[in-house]
Amino acid sequence: MKIHGVGAAEGIGIGVAKVVREQNVEVVKKAVSDIESEVNNFMRVLDITKAETEEMSQALEKNASAKEAEILFGHIMLMSDPMLVDEIVNRIKGESVCAEYAIDEVCNQYAAVFASMDDELMQQRATDMLDIKTRLIKKILGIENTDLSKLPYGSIIVAKDLTPSMTAGLNPDNVFGIVTQFGGKTSHSAILARALEIPAVVGLSNLPEDISDNTDILLDGESGEVIILPTDAEKSDYENKKKKYDANKEMLKKYRGLPSISKDGKKVEIAGNIGSPEDAKKVIENGGEGIGLFRTEFLFMDRDGMPTEEEQFESYKEVATAMEGKPVIIRTLDIGGDKEIPYMGIVQDENPFLGYRAIRLCLDRKDDIYIPQLRALLRASAFGNIKIMLPLITSMDEIREAKALISDIKKELDEKNIAYNKNIEVGIMVETAAASLLADIFAKEVDFFSIGTNDLIQYTMSVDRGNVKIAGLYSPFSPAVLRSINRIITEGKKAGIMVGMCGEAASDPLLIPVLLSWGMDEFSMSASSILKSRQIISGCDSKELKVKVDKVLEMSTEGEIKEYLKKLTEELGC
Amino acid sequence: MKIHGVGAAEGIGIGVAKVVREQNVEVVKKAVSDIESEVNNFMRVLDITKAETEEMSQALEKNASAKEAEILFGHIMLMSDPMLVDEIVNRIKGESVCAEYAIDEVCNQYAAVFASMDDELMQQRATDMLDIKTRLIKKILGIENTDLSKLPYGSIIVAKDLTPSMTAGLNPDNVFGIVTQFGGKTSHSAILARALEIPAVVGLSNLPEDISDNTDILLDGESGEVIILPTDAEKSDYENKKKKYDANKEMLKKYRGLPSISKDGKKVEIAGNIGSPEDAKKVIENGGEGIGLFRTEFLFMDRDGMPTEEEQFESYKEVATAMEGKPVIIRTLDIGGDKEIPYMGIVQDENPFLGYRAIRLCLDRKDDIYIPQLRALLRASAFGNIKIMLPLITSMDEIREAKALISDIKKELDEKNIAYNKNIEVGIMVETAAASLLADIFAKEVDFFSIGTNDLIQYTMSVDRGNVKIAGLYSPFSPAVLRSINRIITEGKKAGIMVGMCGEAASDPLLIPVLLSWGMDEFSMSASSILKSRQIISGCDSKELKVKVDKVLEMSTEGEIKEYLKKLTEELGC
Repeated sequence: MKIHGVGAAEGIGIGVAKVVREQNVEVVKKAVSDIESEVNNFMRVLDITKAETEEMSQALEKNASAKEAEILFGHIMLMSDPMLVDEIVNRIKGESVCAEYAIDEVCNQYAAVFASMDDELMQQRATDMLDIKTRLIKKILGIENTDLSKLPYGSIIVAKDLTPSMTAGLNPDNVFGIVTQFGGKTSHSAILARALEIPAVVGLSNLPEDISDNTDILLDGESGEVIILPTDAEKSDYENKKKKYDANKEMLKKYRGLPSISKDGKKVEIAGNIGSPEDAKKVIENGGEGIGLFRTEFLFMDRDGMPTEEEQFESYKEVATAMEGKPVIIRTLDIGGDKEIPYMGIVQDENPFLGYRAIRLCLDRKDDIYIPQLRALLRASAFGNIKIMLPLITSMDEIREAKALISDIKKELDEKNIAYNKNIEVGIMVETAAASLLADIFAKEVDFFSIGTNDLIQYTMSVDRGNVKIAGLYSPFSPAVLRSINRIITEGKKAGIMVGMCGEAASDPLLIPVLLSWGMDEFSMSASSILKSRQIISGCDSKELKVKVDKVLEMSTEGEIKEYLKKLTEELGC
Repeated sequence: MKIHGVGAAEGIGIGVAKVVREQNVEVVKKAVSDIESEVNNFMRVLDITKAETEEMSQALEKNASAKEAEILFGHIMLMSDPMLVDEIVNRIKGESVCAEYAIDEVCNQYAAVFASMDDELMQQRATDMLDIKTRLIKKILGIENTDLSKLPYGSIIVAKDLTPSMTAGLNPDNVFGIVTQFGGKTSHSAILARALEIPAVVGLSNLPEDISDNTDILLDGESGEVIILPTDAEKSDYENKKKKYDANKEMLKKYRGLPSISKDGKKVEIAGNIGSPEDAKKVIENGGEGIGLFRTEFLFMDRDGMPTEEEQFESYKEVATAMEGKPVIIRTLDIGGDKEIPYMGIVQDENPFLGYRAIRLCLDRKDDIYIPQLRALLRASAFGNIKIMLPLITSMDEIREAKALISDIKKELDEKNIAYNKNIEVGIMVETAAASLLADIFAKEVDFFSIGTNDLIQYTMSVDRGNVKIAGLYSPFSPAVLRSINRIITEGKKAGIMVGMCGEAASDPLLIPVLLSWGMDEFSMSASSILKSRQIISGCDSKELKVKVDKVLEMSTEGEIKEYLKKLTEELGC
């Protein structure tokens, strides 16, 4: 039986089903007489669960990605919401009912509100809320949690959806694939699978309910195809596919130690995007020539107070040292009203992506946030090739204000005889329409550009990238987006500065030839895309491409451009 | 005593204080035994209050502006929120308490949540929630509402804040000014004052609590100055100011019947922005040469179901007829996730301004929303010079899809022998970064451009215009915004189509000379700004300006540009 879902993590999976069923937790409304001890019991379980989540989050950070850990941080935040806690306590007191009933009622109500919002992020919060609910109730009733750490070699996990609390202990060596009924490209299951490099298909709305353990299953994490109880022909077909996939992966390894050079000898740099110091290892393993984007948000999340300058210094130094002189571009704090961060006094904005965030927040909070971060960055610059990158720039005033701060800190370090790189480069993310329009002016003021396509697309097209209802408008191949990218590269190169890109688009096989032909210097991406991108670049002749690629600048629609580039890259074999 | 606040509606006010005190509504927690009748009483009062609000809203629409009515519509929405109503009912039932206590508790809780969000719009909702609360409780307790309809001639209203429910009956002939302790430029009091042309200063944080009725008060609605118990000198100073202000207002009247022509003979058009058919009168009174923006949202708000095609037709026809052949640009529905509209199934987006709205929503809801609106527009085009304008365009596909719809409807009308203007013009709002970048391509596909600066600034600068924390970045004088505007005008004129502007910036005295020199054809603004703008244009020499104005395109900061334009306009006396 063949079904189709969303390909969430590439690779071919061949194995046997291990069905993860959600344990049915039955909640009975029971009256209680000792209300105080019921409330105390709830508060105690809440504290334990928060502490466990904290632990899981730390385990995940080592095992998988910082992103997963972030999700669990979201759980801690939800469990710390005074409104939620108050409502549960009031329910216990007001109705003299047992804690599990109060939890069930209140959490369901919250989840229903989140679920009613037609937005992938909010739907995610509904899932989070239900995950928390189940864990709290299980703990109160003394029911054990699902444990995926003991799955045997060759398992394909089959589930409605995976929650971070389930997957914390998962052994990636034994799990050959993941298939889930719910979820999309950005759901927990998908993020986890990519981080652990396990092939996965999610969002299989017609996944049969009655699959039994050890049923044969095949899956293609790229196309989204899943075959349950395959025929022998299908099985051998998938074995061939897997061989090819593995061979290709093996073949790509030969690009590991090589420079990134096009057919006509143009040398560029392929770097990695990372979210924590540990991620740097993967970039090196995959032959990355530097770090094109080090997100510093992880230092500020999942905690109750600001990180010290010392903590920050250690993290930046760790990456700089690990990269052994290769460039490490560190983006200053890019945080704001899409997540509430109580200890920073950050509350949700009405339009978070157009709100009080990133450089805006940092320049407004120099003493407690920005100066400590910049000082940590400067001090760490003595230990490697660190460059500072400013996010969300829309005006020259912001650049000048940040540079003035850096120059003040340099003087202070000089006075105290503290080492730092006196020639440290300061660049900007070019990710707003304003920065693109002013690229010629900004290029004279900064040392490098890095195009942040995720935001650039969002702001150019006026499309929230998390809003599934308008996902069709969110594309790097939109004519407006390509014109903007072309303008940024052209103006940057005219001024003689380095131009890179650290958004998802930098590893898009159709876009790489375009960017290369326009003269982009640096491509920064997730570690797993580095080798494939280097292979693509080595097959491109940037001069031959130039004239042909420039035609996209006169095209009217995204469809036309994509079609044209597909044909062109096939024709030229790049 | 002199104090300063936010100038919210221009004009000089000289009169005596009429202090509007909020009646203290004391709520006592009383146990009730007949819970069912308590709940019924609450539901009855809720229904009555909703119906009254509906009435007030209609009264306001006639008396003042559609915007005020919209706010009251927001009240109806809040009162119809099932979560709110459920919580109040549950509180009555769960605690066996009187309705007023339950209302007080629940509404306060909601208001506190809204107020804790550091965003002007959400703060407004907190005010709305408290307004509703007070009205519901007063009605339950049988307390009469504050009535401003009987204020004597020469009154200056002094209040903490005005709520729409207080001001519904206000007689603008008798009220010479409004001063309030709270509120900003977009608060109810401010909007109301501008609509009724009453001078107003709001946000007077140090307004004394103890002002007594009939105290002399002076206010300047432009500078924000308020003088309580003025000296004779101050009084005569203000009388002079008032004379000047009135004389200038009188002088402007001579521009009423004149065309809009610059010193060097360039003729442009000054049109009005309107939100409902009644607003057209004011545009004509102020000498408007057309309607540059007719917002059609009013037809869809403040109701329980979709307006019929017939209703829409009548409204569009009414404006077209009233304007007697002058151009009437009607924007198709620009609605979306910043307001929940239950009957349309519209829910709040995570980032409403980057969300599912305007043309995106309309093209997704052709049958029930877009086709009836377009058919109504085409039918009304037989009665005047209607042009159709598409909002939030970011791609050619959207333009083509809308034009194909229009062409299908034309065929249908032909078959049915229904009259319409076969040469009706179809244009677009240019208000996204994408539309600006693709202006050359779009100009070949449409009949006119109208630059929507409010959104264009927002999207270019990645700044939510309602977010007070980053208001400094929201400026039409940002170098990026001016470059974008220049590009749109230049490309539009190159293609030979009309280019107008219907955002607030079109009436900015510093910007008018810039736009004129770049070749803009049409300036659309609120009715009250038309004559002043015509005066400014008549003092400009567009050719002399051109070279000097173009220098702003090379400037780096908003401050530098504003400074330069101030000097330039002073120098040239325009």
